Amino acid sequence: MQRYFIDEDNWQDGYIAITGDDYHHITNVMRMDIDSEILCNHPNGKVAHCKIEKIDTTTVVVKIIEWLESNTDSPISITIAQGLPKGDKWEFILQKSTELGVSRMIAFQAERSVVKWDDKKVNKKFARWEKIVKEASEQSHRNKIPSVDGVLSFSALLEESKNYEWKFFAFEDEARNRQSKKLHDYFAKINEGDSVFVCIGPEGGFSLNEVEQLLAASFQAIRLGPRILRTETAPLYVLSSLSYYFEEMR
Amino acid sequence: MQRYFIDEDNWQDGYIAITGDDYHHITNVMRMDIDSEILCNHPNGKVAHCKIEKIDTTTVVVKIIEWLESNTDSPISITIAQGLPKGDKWEFILQKSTELGVSRMIAFQAERSVVKWDDKKVNKKFARWEKIVKEASEQSHRNKIPSVDGVLSFSALLEESKNYEWKFFAFEDEARNRQSKKLHDYFAKINEGDSVFVCIGPEGGFSLNEVEQLLAASFQAIRLGPRILRTETAPLYVLSSLSYYFEEMR
Repeated sequence: MQRYFIDEDNWQDGYIAITGDDYHHITNVMRMDIDSEILCNHPNGKVAHCKIEKIDTTTVVVKIIEWLESNTDSPISITIAQGLPKGDKWEFILQKSTELGVSRMIAFQAERSVVKWDDKKVNKKFARWEKIVKEASEQSHRNKIPSVDGVLSFSALLEESKNYEWKFFAFEDEARNRQSKKLHDYFAKINEGDSVFVCIGPEGGFSLNEVEQLLAASFQAIRLGPRILRTETAPLYVLSSLSYYFEEMR
Repeated sequence: MQRYFIDEDNWQDGYIAITGDDYHHITNVMRMDIDSEILCNHPNGKVAHCKIEKIDTTTVVVKIIEWLESNTDSPISITIAQGLPKGDKWEFILQKSTELGVSRMIAFQAERSVVKWDDKKVNKKFARWEKIVKEASEQSHRNKIPSVDGVLSFSALLEESKNYEWKFFAFEDEARNRQSKKLHDYFAKINEGDSVFVCIGPEGGFSLNEVEQLLAASFQAIRLGPRILRTETAPLYVLSSLSYYFEEMR
């Protein structure tokens, strides 16, 4: 069944008013009619099974039939902070990380980021990023849409990480070193409900300066398997592994 | 250090003759010179640390300094069989799966594959697919290059799967069903050295007919976390999870 994430203001007394892009999607793309059924996600994460009662020129009104007991979101809260990568990789990472259960996405300006994005450029892109995570949330049947932040400076990123229980950064040297601790040695200590912050470098990796600052800010260096992953593959490995361990194993 | 996968014929008595694309890469892209050092991978999976001895107009001759003790390949042999997806997704899947440790990649013509590729089109693409997995193997420091097959019919695919110890297919209904067995219940039974075959449907998933044939051929239906993944995300979840369990946990 088609799923829509609807802003809080549009919910009232067992009814939901759907407008804008979602109105267009329901009427023009899906060509639904009175009595068609959809799922509506409230920003609090709850999901309602709904039936269309009325369609006019700007609004679809649906009635809530029942609240569903369904939670597909991760039992831990995972933030991926990604050094700004080249081209459209950030958009790819946003989409895939949403499917894989991320809670929050942050892009930051790393020393070795080839692209430099000023506020004007970021502001222009932001609506598109939010659309990508919303659509990926609908498609993958998430309960909540992940939040998106960026593009932060490295010092703002470190400040942002202070409220997290677990802080890691993916470090190539750990993959190369056969004496390094395994990833599970770190993940096994995380408890359900904990917040996890994982920082990933851009194409060229972290600078020495950044590595020193991360370590000083109590980040732990982790490996992501024995191979060297591209910057856009690293967050997918992190999220899949955490899903396997917390959702498919414990 | 730059890594090259060199055909068996080019290795002789402690020396390796490098020609073709790799010659071009060493001389024109990397602009290396006499005494520059590189890593060379033999098709048997062994890795040699080498030094350039001679460069002429067609060949770089390198001398083996020492054999390295390094194995970054998975302790299990994983085959991903993917229902032919739209656009350039297959190329994306080839690259990412190589980074994540796959042994063999197979594309097959699924009932719901939107694209239909005839032999002529496949033959034209094949060199490009092999180049993608070779370059991804070099970049991710693999010991062996995965093999690529396709595009197989569904019946040829089932025939191909007969020699494997473990056969799974990713099934959306398993993700939706909260009573279904967890992924780890299946993966925990796999032993190091085993061969694993994972079949993934195209955008529209498997047809009912295909599901019946897979079950009749002793495939087990697995879920990949509680969310619904896109076809190109599913193999990355499988490979990351297997890497986490077999390379980062046990």
